[in-house]
Amino acid sequence: MSAFSRFTPLIQSLPASVPFVGPEALERQHGRKIAARIGANESGFGPAPSVLLAIRQAAGDTWKYADPENHDLKQALARHLGTSPANIAIGEGIDGLLGQIVRLVVEAGAPVVTSLGGYPTFNYHVAGHGGRLVTVPYADDREDLEGLLAAVGRENAPLVYLANPDNPMGSWWPAERVVAFAQALPETTLLVLDEAYCETAPRDALPPIESLIDKPNVIRARTFSKAYGLAGARIGYTLSTPGTAQAFDKIRNHFGMSRIGVAAAIAALADQDYLKEVTLKIANSRQRIGRIAADSGLAPLPSATNFVAVDCGKDASYARAIVDRLMSDHGIFIRMPGVAPLNRCIRISTAPDAEMDLLAAALPEVIRSLAAT
Amino acid sequence: MSAFSRFTPLIQSLPASVPFVGPEALERQHGRKIAARIGANESGFGPAPSVLLAIRQAAGDTWKYADPENHDLKQALARHLGTSPANIAIGEGIDGLLGQIVRLVVEAGAPVVTSLGGYPTFNYHVAGHGGRLVTVPYADDREDLEGLLAAVGRENAPLVYLANPDNPMGSWWPAERVVAFAQALPETTLLVLDEAYCETAPRDALPPIESLIDKPNVIRARTFSKAYGLAGARIGYTLSTPGTAQAFDKIRNHFGMSRIGVAAAIAALADQDYLKEVTLKIANSRQRIGRIAADSGLAPLPSATNFVAVDCGKDASYARAIVDRLMSDHGIFIRMPGVAPLNRCIRISTAPDAEMDLLAAALPEVIRSLAAT
Repeated sequence: MSAFSRFTPLIQSLPASVPFVGPEALERQHGRKIAARIGANESGFGPAPSVLLAIRQAAGDTWKYADPENHDLKQALARHLGTSPANIAIGEGIDGLLGQIVRLVVEAGAPVVTSLGGYPTFNYHVAGHGGRLVTVPYADDREDLEGLLAAVGRENAPLVYLANPDNPMGSWWPAERVVAFAQALPETTLLVLDEAYCETAPRDALPPIESLIDKPNVIRARTFSKAYGLAGARIGYTLSTPGTAQAFDKIRNHFGMSRIGVAAAIAALADQDYLKEVTLKIANSRQRIGRIAADSGLAPLPSATNFVAVDCGKDASYARAIVDRLMSDHGIFIRMPGVAPLNRCIRISTAPDAEMDLLAAALPEVIRSLAAT
Repeated sequence: MSAFSRFTPLIQSLPASVPFVGPEALERQHGRKIAARIGANESGFGPAPSVLLAIRQAAGDTWKYADPENHDLKQALARHLGTSPANIAIGEGIDGLLGQIVRLVVEAGAPVVTSLGGYPTFNYHVAGHGGRLVTVPYADDREDLEGLLAAVGRENAPLVYLANPDNPMGSWWPAERVVAFAQALPETTLLVLDEAYCETAPRDALPPIESLIDKPNVIRARTFSKAYGLAGARIGYTLSTPGTAQAFDKIRNHFGMSRIGVAAAIAALADQDYLKEVTLKIANSRQRIGRIAADSGLAPLPSATNFVAVDCGKDASYARAIVDRLMSDHGIFIRMPGVAPLNRCIRISTAPDAEMDLLAAALPEVIRSLAAT
């Protein structure tokens, strides 16, 4: 296939890839509609009714670019978090922000530390900027803080990634361990602390804002994609020192935000009653996933997120077979971790009862059918 | 202000900047609401009613990520343009796509050719990737095709930018000249042909799709932000060979598109009757801007876009004074080109009659008040 001949050597060395196969692609592959979309850690509970109203009201203004300074959203977040707008950067979801963070720090060949089996999109961005991934295995299904720290020191790495709570395992560290980890890092290592799942975590898993906000080498990333139910709106934000936050202004796509999305995020933040409601529903759904798994002889892992990793007790090919059969035979979309030993598990997103009912009916069938083969 | 100490040398060398000051920032600076938003080449005519309906219908699905393959939008565009989905890449507006194109091609120090006074956001991305801008002055308010070609040859540049029709001047070249320019380029130079304003251009200004689609070194960029009235949705696309299109898949943010925005774009494309209506309104509004300008003794330039550049007949400080007074005294937001000799002009976006009425009332007052000082 004829491509331009003079893309950079780095670009020429990269594969065309996608960090995740989308559920729509699965529908096209399988020739069937997904009946239960519980694989991408979206929120089937949806955004608040007040947010849907805000979206409909904002529709008429979609001919306007969004404010490139994201003034109103920053103000709202600052009030909500008890910090200053100068501590906040806004971006196109955490995925977009991760790409920018990697670009800010990673030159060709730079070592970047993350967990083996951690968030693939972060790895994708590191590869895309020519960084060299240094991976540390999980320990007991948690990211290994001491191992990450040792790797940072050994490699003199300028960047380390930690998700707390973790994806894909749902595990978490208490806040004081995360703060101690950040404090133990050299000043020349930037910690990107991915807190996509902070709203569904136990309170004591989240470092207070003030505990890390003065550290120039810490960026916390959060999103409206998970508990707030706005994955399709692509609104994420970071918390850092003002100096570190300003670096995004050097490279970001200033007019890159969806205007309706920003309006939706502001409305979502204003409706904390709904967030309380929905996080309770998510917690209940985690319980239900646990029961459904246990009923089929599988072992749900504790989760601080809007999904549950379920230990299927065998190897990756067994977990893969469950994932595939749920989709092909039942139209149920789930995912699984990518590397051993995490890939003995499947990963199921929380969702309303209708989806859970489908899962409860299908999973035992799938397990039985696999036992019979 | 304390920032992380180990951002890359390139990042440390860059200023925190924004290619354009947003109208919302002007509102905050001036402490007044904008009465006529006719400065950012948005479409105050808005998207089609059918698109607003599609947005409202898509709202309930905004908890889902958009399809990372953008399958349906690519199919719709391919049908509309008579090409294959494989020729198309989708991105977060042309701004986002330009950033990706620069990243695909530009290494530190690489020469990149564009026009002096051309689209600032392209320059911003070039600077952000450490490229070296080589600029060619406009000739008679048009981008200078021979000058650009000569600069490419002299510099052995891997990338050249051409907007047709042009922003900020509204001028254009006939299709055959653009095709000849593309054909004269070395195969080792990528042409990014920015066609943001293609829908409002005379038909003979647009090279047929098939005239350039087989050239691996040509990327045409288009958007739903202008005539389609969806600037806030951030949906752009490129046309190129499949091989060149695939390069985007190596670096883009696969889950970066707004789901509502994609739904809006598909609906907009399906409503070509509305596009015809609105491009007629834009053409009429261009005429009206011309009359308003002429009534104040200013000289409108011919335009193939949704805006009109108006020669104010004096220097940049005079044009700047008109821009500033329209905003400060009348709440009318317009912009002007950034460099001489283009900056003798102001640039006014087409809009519905209400905004034009405000302009018609305000411009003579501003011109009189400036003559009196």
